[in-house]
Amino acid sequence: MTEANIALIEAAADRLRGHARVTPLLSSPFLDEIAGRRVLVKAECLQHTGSFKFRGGWSAVSALPEEVRGKGVVAVSTGNHAQGVAYAAQLHGVPSVIVMPADAPKLKIENTRALGAEVILYDRETENRDEIGAKLSRERDLTLIKPYDDPQVIAGQGTIGLELAQQLADEDIAKADVLIPCGGGGLSSGIGLALEAWAPGLRIRPVEPADFDDVKRSLASGRIEKNPKATGSLCDAILTPSPGSITFPILSRIAGPGLSVTDDEALRGMALAFSRLKIVLEPAGAVALASALLHPNESEGDAVIVVASGGNVDAPVFREALDRFAD
Amino acid sequence: MTEANIALIEAAADRLRGHARVTPLLSSPFLDEIAGRRVLVKAECLQHTGSFKFRGGWSAVSALPEEVRGKGVVAVSTGNHAQGVAYAAQLHGVPSVIVMPADAPKLKIENTRALGAEVILYDRETENRDEIGAKLSRERDLTLIKPYDDPQVIAGQGTIGLELAQQLADEDIAKADVLIPCGGGGLSSGIGLALEAWAPGLRIRPVEPADFDDVKRSLASGRIEKNPKATGSLCDAILTPSPGSITFPILSRIAGPGLSVTDDEALRGMALAFSRLKIVLEPAGAVALASALLHPNESEGDAVIVVASGGNVDAPVFREALDRFAD
Repeated sequence: MTEANIALIEAAADRLRGHARVTPLLSSPFLDEIAGRRVLVKAECLQHTGSFKFRGGWSAVSALPEEVRGKGVVAVSTGNHAQGVAYAAQLHGVPSVIVMPADAPKLKIENTRALGAEVILYDRETENRDEIGAKLSRERDLTLIKPYDDPQVIAGQGTIGLELAQQLADEDIAKADVLIPCGGGGLSSGIGLALEAWAPGLRIRPVEPADFDDVKRSLASGRIEKNPKATGSLCDAILTPSPGSITFPILSRIAGPGLSVTDDEALRGMALAFSRLKIVLEPAGAVALASALLHPNESEGDAVIVVASGGNVDAPVFREALDRFAD
Repeated sequence: MTEANIALIEAAADRLRGHARVTPLLSSPFLDEIAGRRVLVKAECLQHTGSFKFRGGWSAVSALPEEVRGKGVVAVSTGNHAQGVAYAAQLHGVPSVIVMPADAPKLKIENTRALGAEVILYDRETENRDEIGAKLSRERDLTLIKPYDDPQVIAGQGTIGLELAQQLADEDIAKADVLIPCGGGGLSSGIGLALEAWAPGLRIRPVEPADFDDVKRSLASGRIEKNPKATGSLCDAILTPSPGSITFPILSRIAGPGLSVTDDEALRGMALAFSRLKIVLEPAGAVALASALLHPNESEGDAVIVVASGGNVDAPVFREALDRFAD
């Protein structure tokens, strides 16, 4: 069976070259002052489809044998994985079916449809999304692309780690905490595997919403912990119930202690990204930046690296961040 | 006397390497659909200090002999040039004095002070800013760095053209209009000179606010025309009275016809940059994007290139763009 490792990540990087964007590493002297150390932000909101998920989607779709890929793919997603898979499928010229929660941001649902996908909505509180996805896969002969517990998806997200290793070497940074927004752990584990191979002085730190800190608690207890609830945070993109069965062993081995921030802190991170970096972040995409800026004592070192993972936010939520927290 | 030409731009690029950011070229299938052609956006809002002006500031400060530079610099600016020069001076360890209009966005004034500059405010309607700058230069032995009519400033902005030539070659685009927000013409003439040398199939098109279209009218009449008023647009960064005496002859030789958009169109451009590109633009920084998307019949070719020149916008103006024009 395919295993998520550095060879798989490097193979994914070859397939992504010229298709995924190499995203910039941004900074501001104003943010450095707030954090009391250098803050370097990997702006993955500038990736195609507005989040890092395009990397995993492209990696998984491009890894399929041509005749399997031609039958189409199905994905189950709160929105960003949906768009990433839909656009990757569209660019490969193959059909996609996306199962999304009915309460996902309107912009994400519309964008997914506009990227050529057939969208099927479900109720996050009462229906089991994984069962819906498995049934569609079986009945319509579509390849199911899981959002994080898939080695090729993890490999795609890991290409961010390869870019970071190069970009941080250019900045002469060999030792730092790397703060990463974390749902099921695909992004964190992919980046962690890449850094383990190419920049072992960099330590990954998953960051979650305060009431959905299953990965933080799982890392502390050494076994998979679950969140008591499924909804109730603005950080919709990372409200997964527990770390994945593939991602958790990787994170257990290489991640530092988990971190968490409140929704209000995520909104404050969005406002600071607006005024100081000129990028648009969604709440889930801002949790790592919020931790770096608002809980600097929880990170270590002379510099902190932040992954700003996505920017697919509806205007009313962005306005709330500006109204309450912009200078 | 130093002349703005391709050799000066390439020398500036050498001095800027490792100091200015190579900004990404962004795109979205949704914007392509609106414009009816490929739209590629050079996101210069992601430059240090939030606008392209850091390039010109760094170019001019770094070109000074060390003993001249050590005495300090003075600049007169609506805000973005102010921050660019102030930060370039701070990074060189030399003092800066910045003359700014009292009605410039609060964020720009505060940022300029925080970047180590001494800020002197003036009244845009009643005082002559150039006289204030010249007097300070004389009395305090500071080198005056003009916002656009300075060969080294033009050379710094021209480094964007060198990056564009490379990035567009990677995209297999050899022929297109390049739409550029235009005040005094430093950005347009610098980019134009670089493209003339390295990508002659690309034609620059200056874009201005509708009631401040002095460059458009000057290009049409063949002589320097002035704007009847000095204030009255949200596009504060590009409300210059007329094209410069250095920039106008360059633009006359190499620019295509000028373009213009209303303030409402600039706000709509900002909303589309928010939802589709995940970048923050100020009104002046969005005029070229607005022209490409909302007046596609005024550009030519299979693709249109847009310079998104800056993102230094106060939250209330950004909120207005979202309230009125976000989906």
